[in-house]
Amino acid sequence: MNYESLLAGRTELMKANAIREILKVVSKPGVISLAGGIPSPDSFPMDIFKELTDRVLTKYSSGAFQYDLTEGFVPLREQVSLLLKSRGIDAPPDTVNITSGSQGVLDAVAKLLISKGDKIALEAPTYLGALSAFNPYEPTYIRMDMDEEGLVPESLEQTLKTHKIKFIYLVPTFQNPTGRTITLERREKIARIIKKYNALLVEDDPYSALRYKGENIPAIKTLAKDNVIYISTLSKIFAPGLRIGFYAAPKFLRQWLVLVKQGVDLHTSTFNQALAAEYLEGNYLVSHLPKIINLYKPKQAAMLSAIEEKLPKEFTCSPSDGGMFLWVTGPRGFDMIRLYHKAIENGVAFVPGKFFFTSEEEGIETMRLNYTMADEKTIDLAIGKLADTILSL
Amino acid sequence: MNYESLLAGRTELMKANAIREILKVVSKPGVISLAGGIPSPDSFPMDIFKELTDRVLTKYSSGAFQYDLTEGFVPLREQVSLLLKSRGIDAPPDTVNITSGSQGVLDAVAKLLISKGDKIALEAPTYLGALSAFNPYEPTYIRMDMDEEGLVPESLEQTLKTHKIKFIYLVPTFQNPTGRTITLERREKIARIIKKYNALLVEDDPYSALRYKGENIPAIKTLAKDNVIYISTLSKIFAPGLRIGFYAAPKFLRQWLVLVKQGVDLHTSTFNQALAAEYLEGNYLVSHLPKIINLYKPKQAAMLSAIEEKLPKEFTCSPSDGGMFLWVTGPRGFDMIRLYHKAIENGVAFVPGKFFFTSEEEGIETMRLNYTMADEKTIDLAIGKLADTILSL
Repeated sequence: MNYESLLAGRTELMKANAIREILKVVSKPGVISLAGGIPSPDSFPMDIFKELTDRVLTKYSSGAFQYDLTEGFVPLREQVSLLLKSRGIDAPPDTVNITSGSQGVLDAVAKLLISKGDKIALEAPTYLGALSAFNPYEPTYIRMDMDEEGLVPESLEQTLKTHKIKFIYLVPTFQNPTGRTITLERREKIARIIKKYNALLVEDDPYSALRYKGENIPAIKTLAKDNVIYISTLSKIFAPGLRIGFYAAPKFLRQWLVLVKQGVDLHTSTFNQALAAEYLEGNYLVSHLPKIINLYKPKQAAMLSAIEEKLPKEFTCSPSDGGMFLWVTGPRGFDMIRLYHKAIENGVAFVPGKFFFTSEEEGIETMRLNYTMADEKTIDLAIGKLADTILSL
Repeated sequence: MNYESLLAGRTELMKANAIREILKVVSKPGVISLAGGIPSPDSFPMDIFKELTDRVLTKYSSGAFQYDLTEGFVPLREQVSLLLKSRGIDAPPDTVNITSGSQGVLDAVAKLLISKGDKIALEAPTYLGALSAFNPYEPTYIRMDMDEEGLVPESLEQTLKTHKIKFIYLVPTFQNPTGRTITLERREKIARIIKKYNALLVEDDPYSALRYKGENIPAIKTLAKDNVIYISTLSKIFAPGLRIGFYAAPKFLRQWLVLVKQGVDLHTSTFNQALAAEYLEGNYLVSHLPKIINLYKPKQAAMLSAIEEKLPKEFTCSPSDGGMFLWVTGPRGFDMIRLYHKAIENGVAFVPGKFFFTSEEEGIETMRLNYTMADEKTIDLAIGKLADTILSL
């Protein structure tokens, strides 16, 4: 059979994936990987899972294993509503929906809103998982400027003035890949702009709980409620393998997003939602989150000082107060892909930053470094190897 | 904000849902529902979940809570490969992929293959969940004839001769909604036809393990390997709330389906996949499945004899050897929607069959009856009420 002739037109945009190709060598034996994007298994609350599962079995019995509402498991929606409240977001339980990871919301939003050719406005660089959710619906991307304080509001306004934008996608806090956070002043400007232009913002917030210094900054959702779909996840503060994401959105969109999700997976695992409900209801998150922060904070500090001490002065790191990544920019035109191949030979891997840009020409001199997986000593060693590789070029 | 103006074109096909409207009254207090489509909670292996979770925690520890491969959790793929082997399907572990329920495969197949307007060939009637997976990708449906022996092969051949079909979708065994099974003779014919026309078949098989009488009949996948995506699930033989589906497909399509799934949910819950792996590896399915069959078999028998005894002779029931549903056809032109409203008043609910047809004119005199949820006595009572309601019209 000629299977290729059966493919839908949308597969065209899904084909090319240079990053998959280049990252194939990351898991070579002996290579320290700063290329990952996943939480440390040491951050999972392994000591309480047995208690949680026992409690779910006792409390919900067969109810934890039955089909459930597409909107989400009611006890979890109640708990997520409280979690959102602690973030300043007013969303009663019946307005909070659960999805299969935040990836599940990104797919549903794209499916609901993107017709072929529709324009989506993105930070440059942006989160790759969002692109893999959006691409199959064949959008066009409009890139917006960022600097060390996150998205430049003037670039957003210019974009909305010039283009008919379906929605804006941002990771405002500890962004993947840059670790940058949009300042409060800019968030207020952004809120004003999206209200002025009646624009819809998809605010993706997986990392804000992982803050290692500084003060919490309110979500843009709190500043422009009707214009924002706020997305978050338990993947970084509980366990990613359970695939629990959630969102708060205006009612009209929420009802549609539920209908979309129904066609995709009916609902998210009832059992895992019940585990998550117990985790939140039992106040385990409150006691466990400081442990996660204590785990990552010294890793981030170790990486920041190694970069400062060991990398040549022309390599600068974006300031970051939390999350999982640091972003290093080399001298203009410095080829990080070339460095990548040499660094792998020297036993250290990272992700060349250009893959996070939607335009071909950008980001050649940038790299993303992850610090959640390695310990402090290994991080120091790896940055040393990176410095040596740079000098050897 | 005017959210409606943001909707993608594909939402047009997702809007209308008469069945959701009509079924709203099903959960009225005092109404016996034969309208459901879900397994009985009594069919879940509640006595072993504690053992399974303990084993997973000990055996896989944090590995059960980490991000995992989009293809599926390796130990589960090994077990599913063995399960498929027991069904005569030769699929080594690395060719078996896991999804979030079989709904997850249906969505991925549709996303991968359907461009707007593409033709999908379906049994009339067909499974509604498949339509809700396919609709957002804007296909056109071509209906094929069925009779008591399932899909009529000549209708399939005629369809493939007349139309350019993207894929054929069938539930060959204990079909939802009809409970019918395609005979072996017809399966062989269907296999020959799809090979002759180089056609792709999506074979959805959620129910074949729930056989209450007669001999197993091989999947069409075993007769035309390269032309079939075979889909199944643990929802009816383990627990639906865990959302574990799986499929075996030709390599080219499989690789694409993984890429599609990555954008939708990254992967299916690692923890639930580990539970499923333990369920299969520990041979729990082998001992538990007879209990499920012993639970449902008398329910089906009770419904069949109540229909035989109590419904007027012009109401005939399709023969069925397993699954979860029976299909009753009234006299030509008999309005089951009218009956539905009267029956609700008399305290019994079912699903009018016309909703399972893609063409407006068909199925007005049909109904789907579910027997997994009520006990034998209640089933008998409900069919009696239905008979009374028919007589009172």
